[in-house]
Amino acid sequence: MPPAPLPISGAAVVAVGAELLAPDREDRNTPALKRLLAELGIPVEFAAVAPDGETALVETLRLAMRRAPLAFAAGGLGPTTDDRTRFAAARALGVELREHAPSVEAIRARFERRGLPMPEVNRLQALLPEGAEALPNPAGTAPGVLARAGGSALVLLPGPPRELEAMFAAEVAPRLRASGAGAAGRVTETLLVAGLTESSLQERILDLTPAAAAAEDLAILAHGGEIELRVVGPAARAGAVRGLADRIAARLGAAVFSRSPGEGLEHAVGRLLTERGERVAVAESLTGGRIGDRITRVPGSSGWFDVAVATYANQAKEAVLGVPRPTLASVGAVSRETAIAMATGVRRLAEDRVGSPAGRTWGLAVTGIAGPTGGSAQKPVGLVWIAVSGPRDAARRFVFPGDRDLIRQLASAAALNLLRRTVESHRQGAGGVEPLGFETPTR
Amino acid sequence: MPPAPLPISGAAVVAVGAELLAPDREDRNTPALKRLLAELGIPVEFAAVAPDGETALVETLRLAMRRAPLAFAAGGLGPTTDDRTRFAAARALGVELREHAPSVEAIRARFERRGLPMPEVNRLQALLPEGAEALPNPAGTAPGVLARAGGSALVLLPGPPRELEAMFAAEVAPRLRASGAGAAGRVTETLLVAGLTESSLQERILDLTPAAAAAEDLAILAHGGEIELRVVGPAARAGAVRGLADRIAARLGAAVFSRSPGEGLEHAVGRLLTERGERVAVAESLTGGRIGDRITRVPGSSGWFDVAVATYANQAKEAVLGVPRPTLASVGAVSRETAIAMATGVRRLAEDRVGSPAGRTWGLAVTGIAGPTGGSAQKPVGLVWIAVSGPRDAARRFVFPGDRDLIRQLASAAALNLLRRTVESHRQGAGGVEPLGFETPTR
Repeated sequence: MPPAPLPISGAAVVAVGAELLAPDREDRNTPALKRLLAELGIPVEFAAVAPDGETALVETLRLAMRRAPLAFAAGGLGPTTDDRTRFAAARALGVELREHAPSVEAIRARFERRGLPMPEVNRLQALLPEGAEALPNPAGTAPGVLARAGGSALVLLPGPPRELEAMFAAEVAPRLRASGAGAAGRVTETLLVAGLTESSLQERILDLTPAAAAAEDLAILAHGGEIELRVVGPAARAGAVRGLADRIAARLGAAVFSRSPGEGLEHAVGRLLTERGERVAVAESLTGGRIGDRITRVPGSSGWFDVAVATYANQAKEAVLGVPRPTLASVGAVSRETAIAMATGVRRLAEDRVGSPAGRTWGLAVTGIAGPTGGSAQKPVGLVWIAVSGPRDAARRFVFPGDRDLIRQLASAAALNLLRRTVESHRQGAGGVEPLGFETPTR
Repeated sequence: MPPAPLPISGAAVVAVGAELLAPDREDRNTPALKRLLAELGIPVEFAAVAPDGETALVETLRLAMRRAPLAFAAGGLGPTTDDRTRFAAARALGVELREHAPSVEAIRARFERRGLPMPEVNRLQALLPEGAEALPNPAGTAPGVLARAGGSALVLLPGPPRELEAMFAAEVAPRLRASGAGAAGRVTETLLVAGLTESSLQERILDLTPAAAAAEDLAILAHGGEIELRVVGPAARAGAVRGLADRIAARLGAAVFSRSPGEGLEHAVGRLLTERGERVAVAESLTGGRIGDRITRVPGSSGWFDVAVATYANQAKEAVLGVPRPTLASVGAVSRETAIAMATGVRRLAEDRVGSPAGRTWGLAVTGIAGPTGGSAQKPVGLVWIAVSGPRDAARRFVFPGDRDLIRQLASAAALNLLRRTVESHRQGAGGVEPLGFETPTR
């Protein structure tokens, strides 16, 4: 007998944890669940943040279950004494907790894989409200819970966003789809954009948005130099949603680096280089390793990346990358000349010493002033020079806004984007076009 | 007669509006109220987002008032039919609504200043629950509401963030201060911990937590290899809060790397090295630049950091760091020997070529298998070797759980922590103790 369908007409979301109520702490799980449920066409009708105290949690879960037939609680499934969600759920459902033997074994196996005994407290994570199902955790220790009560359902998910998303994808979404969600739901087309500000993007597509607003939702989310643009509409009008996304993509041209949700510039760069059998080597100053970190986030990046150097000190730029001392002395570390020498230097290091293929290796370099100190009238905090050296060359100056973190983030995105655009324009221009030289490319 | 004081021991916040439950929409009022209340020492103990439907709103306001003595609702005070907050508040309080003549006049005057007659619907904005006070709106039309019920209070604020903040500043904050807020707020002691799992930390302090639970709140937040432990209590008992934090810190010993909120391991490492006039150079494989990125997040890290190398390819380990080819061939890139050779190699690179001071420079190296592929029975995904070379040496093996992202995050935290512990034990052992050699230090 197939399991009874889950309710899909509306959902409530409870984020659990006193820390989420502190100032400056953000709850990432409610936005994630809103998005995941929207993709299945399920509207969120109530949301709350409850502290870990059991009474507060019981009352909040009860209200959530009254507000919508499908209630989620995120967090509080850990092994510590302030993790009370299982206990509160059982009370809200009016049932007892029982230890679930397969979950104990799964938790124990997870510790054993790390060569550790399972601490006794972790046994608490295997408690299940009577009659509920355990949801395996693909990315962590705590199993989730799916409990049914009449026509309602209560789903407990782990608090770490990574675990929550993995469990939702593996365990919850398939059950909701099997219950009819998604089919009559909504479709999303995603465009990922770099090299534009949010407002310049908006201006470019202004005349397309009234059509969008009437029929579909258009969301624009900017994040550290990359912008995610989503066109959402009813599945019945999937063709129109796609058509609007295509019109916007045509308008934005090469600024669109991907149409796959969740990708970053590093994925687009990796795809391009893999296609062409090319590789990249990186020299970083103010970003200190952030670009290398982003590149190696991509599984399989060893196929197109060998080496990165974070030359924070001038002497490191000179000794490791061969930036000429007179250049550093005359125009300084944050200059077009130094950026070019760093890009050239790291490309040669990769080609000559690491064995990256000559003529098919790109050097990418970033140098700048992240602040909060070290700026001047001529070279303000936020000034960044980025250079690309390889089959085609490019260099470009930026002045980024924000604090140290944002400047470093924007610099890493701009660097990956300049590399992407340079590789793309080399491909398009292959055979005919003069090398750009170290000129600032027009956008 | 002065007005009765308002409750200041804790607050609940309800954001009103179906639109706040849509994906990609953020509620700015709850974060604003969390911050404004924190400045007055009033903790937020519950938060919810309710749609405009009156029944949902009545239930949510009732729960909010049960969860904390001082409840706020933000939004839904407009003149349109979906603005139901006044109506729901009256029902939640069990009283009738009455038109408040001075508010009608204030609204009319606001329209007249713009040369407009007051639309009749705006009269609804002058409705007040019986016995409540109207709060003038310095920045908009809708007056707010302050209602008292027993020892509790319910405050209705307008939804536009600018109006909410202006009304809070002009009308609410002064009343809360007059009631004693700000002076007698809450205090927080923070302990930042590394090298323990959340559950092993919990086990170590289990006997201390009942005392904590009785008198103070204890929150434990794990994030990528670092754990934040917060003891929170009333300012009147600041000594006891501090005392409990001290007892926990003593119990956890060297696992505590900082007591300053917001710091990471990189800050602790930076402080240690700065104190000692020492520097660090980094060689990364699976982390690809993440450790360098973390180090250079710290303003002023140029005072203790010169260079990092991400040697992703074996040939880069050999050519840039001098890892012997026979080592790579016989025991492989993920091995104790390779980690040690990388740490030694990057230290020598820094000392011999970049000018880091000989004898006062630490080399830190990480090599491992981040997955998702590349693991084997002997060397599973998650296997990581970390080595420190310098005034004292150390090497250590880890098997981390999780996916590629988490493994890389845990590896970077473990690396910074091994460096920290090695530097600390060198300092403590200076003058007497044998160098550890490349042994696994006991924790």
